[in-house]
Amino acid sequence: MSSISIIGLGGMARAIGARAVESGNAVEVIGRDAAKAKDLAAALGGGATAGTFGTVPAGDIVILAVPNAGAVPVVTQYGDALAGKVIIDITNPLTADGAGLVTPDGTSAAQQIAQAAPASAHVVKAFNTVFGHALTPGRSLDVLYAGDDARAKASVSAFIESLGLRPLDAGGLDMAHWLEGTGLLMISLARHGVGNFNFTLGVTIIG
Amino acid sequence: MSSISIIGLGGMARAIGARAVESGNAVEVIGRDAAKAKDLAAALGGGATAGTFGTVPAGDIVILAVPNAGAVPVVTQYGDALAGKVIIDITNPLTADGAGLVTPDGTSAAQQIAQAAPASAHVVKAFNTVFGHALTPGRSLDVLYAGDDARAKASVSAFIESLGLRPLDAGGLDMAHWLEGTGLLMISLARHGVGNFNFTLGVTIIG
Repeated sequence: MSSISIIGLGGMARAIGARAVESGNAVEVIGRDAAKAKDLAAALGGGATAGTFGTVPAGDIVILAVPNAGAVPVVTQYGDALAGKVIIDITNPLTADGAGLVTPDGTSAAQQIAQAAPASAHVVKAFNTVFGHALTPGRSLDVLYAGDDARAKASVSAFIESLGLRPLDAGGLDMAHWLEGTGLLMISLARHGVGNFNFTLGVTIIG
Repeated sequence: MSSISIIGLGGMARAIGARAVESGNAVEVIGRDAAKAKDLAAALGGGATAGTFGTVPAGDIVILAVPNAGAVPVVTQYGDALAGKVIIDITNPLTADGAGLVTPDGTSAAQQIAQAAPASAHVVKAFNTVFGHALTPGRSLDVLYAGDDARAKASVSAFIESLGLRPLDAGGLDMAHWLEGTGLLMISLARHGVGNFNFTLGVTIIG
C-alpha cells in the first residue's frame, strides 16, 4: 500500500481519492480551501486526512490534481516542500476550446512541472488518459504512465495496481508529450461521436 | 462493398488486402515490381488484381501502404492519376531508431501527403495505430481515423466496417499529428514491456 497526498479538490481528486481509500492506501487531501479539504477527507472516509496547503505533504507520492494552468505555480509555491517526492502529473494542458494543447512543441506539462520541481523530486505522468467518471468502483482500466526515474515509476505502477487498475509503461518523460496528445485525441474522439465521453482507452493483449 | 487499390506490397498491404478480399471488397494491388504485385494478387485470391504503378488506380479508395519516406514521392509521381480518389495514409513517420517522429511539429505525414496530392483527392489517416500482425482473420479491433472531408471519411468508415473492424472518428486531418504520435506511443509501450508488440489499442465503451 502507498502513502499518497492529493493536491486538488476537484473531480479527479475525488475519483482517485475514492479508489485509493477503498483499496487501503493512506490518503491525504490538500487544497487552498482548508474547510473544503476537510470535507473531502470526511467524504472519502477510510482514515483520509486533510493536509495543509504549501507544507510538506504526508504522502511519498503526491498527485497534482489541479487544473493545468495551476500546476506549475503550485509546484513553484511548494518549492522544497516537494523534495524527494514522487509527483504524479495527471493534467491535460488543453486550450480553452479543448481542440489543442497549450504546451509548446517539444515539451509537455509534465516536463514543465519537472523543471519547476526540486531536483530530488521525480515526476511521473499518469492518469491523464482516464476520464474521472470512468474510475467508478470496481471498474478495471488501463493507466498509461511515463517517467525518467525507474524507482519513481515502480512506485507509481504499484500504486496504480493497488487501485485495481492496469499500469502500462509508456517510456520516459519525453513520452508525456504524446500521452498529453492522447488525452486530446480522446476528447476529439468523444466529440466525434465515440461513446459520448463514456469510454476508456487501453490495450488488448493478443495471443 | 468498396473498390480499393493498395499501393505497396509489404506486410501492411498484405494484411489489409487479405481482410479486404475476405470480406468481399474489390482489391487491386500495385507495386513498382509488377511481378511481385502479380504474386501478391494471386496470393490474396478472391479476384484480386495487380495494377500498373503510376497509372490511374482502379479503386475509389487508394491505400498508401508504402514506407513513410516513400509516401510523398509516390503521391507526387502519381500526380493527377489520383484525382478524385480517397487516399488512406497508414504510415508512421518514425525516426530510424523508432523513438521519435521525423515530421516537423504542427504537421503530420498525412498533411504532407494531402499537400502533395491533387486538390480533388481527399486524404484520410487510418490504420497507423494497428500493428499489421494484429489484422489476422476474425479479430475485431479499433481503427482510428481522421480527415477533413465528410464523404471521404464516411467511405473509409464503411470500408473499415466491411473488414469486421470498428471505425472510430478522431476528427479532422489536424488530428493526424496525434494519431501518428499514438503510433509512436504504441511502439514505446511495446518496448517497455507491454505485450511484446502483441496488442491492439482501442476504446471500451462504458455504461
